[in-house]
Amino acid sequence: MPVPGKVYLIGAGPGAQDLITLRGARLLAQADIVLYDALVTPEMLALCPQAEKILVGKRSGQRSVAQQVINQQLIECAQRAKLVVRLKGGDPMIFGRADEELRALEEAGIEVDIVPGITTALAAAAATKQPLTKRGVARSVAFFTSSTAPEHSDHDAIPETDTLVQYMGGREAISTAERLLKHGHQPDTPVVVIENVSRADQKIHRMNVAQLAQGLGTPHGPVLVMIGEAMRPRAHQQFDNGISGTIATQLSA
Amino acid sequence: MPVPGKVYLIGAGPGAQDLITLRGARLLAQADIVLYDALVTPEMLALCPQAEKILVGKRSGQRSVAQQVINQQLIECAQRAKLVVRLKGGDPMIFGRADEELRALEEAGIEVDIVPGITTALAAAAATKQPLTKRGVARSVAFFTSSTAPEHSDHDAIPETDTLVQYMGGREAISTAERLLKHGHQPDTPVVVIENVSRADQKIHRMNVAQLAQGLGTPHGPVLVMIGEAMRPRAHQQFDNGISGTIATQLSA
Repeated sequence: MPVPGKVYLIGAGPGAQDLITLRGARLLAQADIVLYDALVTPEMLALCPQAEKILVGKRSGQRSVAQQVINQQLIECAQRAKLVVRLKGGDPMIFGRADEELRALEEAGIEVDIVPGITTALAAAAATKQPLTKRGVARSVAFFTSSTAPEHSDHDAIPETDTLVQYMGGREAISTAERLLKHGHQPDTPVVVIENVSRADQKIHRMNVAQLAQGLGTPHGPVLVMIGEAMRPRAHQQFDNGISGTIATQLSA
Repeated sequence: MPVPGKVYLIGAGPGAQDLITLRGARLLAQADIVLYDALVTPEMLALCPQAEKILVGKRSGQRSVAQQVINQQLIECAQRAKLVVRLKGGDPMIFGRADEELRALEEAGIEVDIVPGITTALAAAAATKQPLTKRGVARSVAFFTSSTAPEHSDHDAIPETDTLVQYMGGREAISTAERLLKHGHQPDTPVVVIENVSRADQKIHRMNVAQLAQGLGTPHGPVLVMIGEAMRPRAHQQFDNGISGTIATQLSA
């Protein structure tokens, strides 16, 4: 049997082509095969015109099976190609199922390396000009998702950090806001919601925890929700397109 | 008075030249002036040979004064140049004092934009091949620093997330481990300590919380400490240089 190739788990970042790292872009341009997620944008794939491109995605209702299929595909690709890229939206090591893919590749004796990417929270902080930490105000930040399992008060505890960032936080963020209020959080704690960060259809919504608990309208893409005093607008901050001026003024400090 | 230039706060990432984003590298290559931190590596500065380069740093014992000096320097640079880059190690929006620089620039009417960077925690996760989240095991991660102020039990609370990442966590991480043990955390919870991530002199140390509480030896560079079940080595994981095989075997699951 021939020597298997090497697999790189690469973070594509939030979507804009130029928010991948130099290392990630260079490896994409050299790749024989690129296995990519539904979250990876067409402009990212334009960085690897030479590569065989394979869309791997979750099949609805069969998540764990699908992950096993992806693992198997990665192994098969490494057995027939020299440089295989597994391209993931954001960063592979945060909410990226990297553990499962690393285990499968290591067990099969395939060499694997990881190239970090801009995780959505950092892209959102940059796009909204809202730092996640702030001297004297916010010295810790948590990135979390809601469990999809039936609610356990214990497992679903909201992290106690100064800033909270909820990934995949559409409907789930409403429940987060309700629980924060129940636990005595200030209703006027500022919230920034961002859809499709870094993409042409990016949308930013500013509100507070009480308003978030009332609902989010109907987001059309991946949603990230940032909560905490660090989200309070600055006195002379210039606002992003689409922001409600009234809310911005109300929140301003 | 002439129209002032534009300032970009850019995340350089952990230090390796090719771990900056394409956008960051392009702006560096176009910059008139680059103001950089002590944490920015010489190889990063090689990306802007054309630019006037100014080292801005904290003066020992006069932190807040120094930040005001940096703010003033940024404003003066924007008044005499078109494209000014403020280059920061890691990501500007996490432990980067971005809030203070944004406020100063906005108040002076200077346009400012932000380019995210690979924050140290993500570079460390990639370098150690240790995901920060893990399906069924770790669904939340906190990035935090210790307060340098006299200890307040309240302000110094350790975040309650599945994975903990302590930035600038040299001696402070020992106190974190002591407090985790005091609050009933498992002594064998795995810990990964990384010095000078992504650089030639990178060092990785694997231990558990009980061992961390005993001390860290003498780290020689910036230290990041990652704690939690997600740090447990995988069955077939291949280890980084310099790791103690005994500890790796003890920890392996």
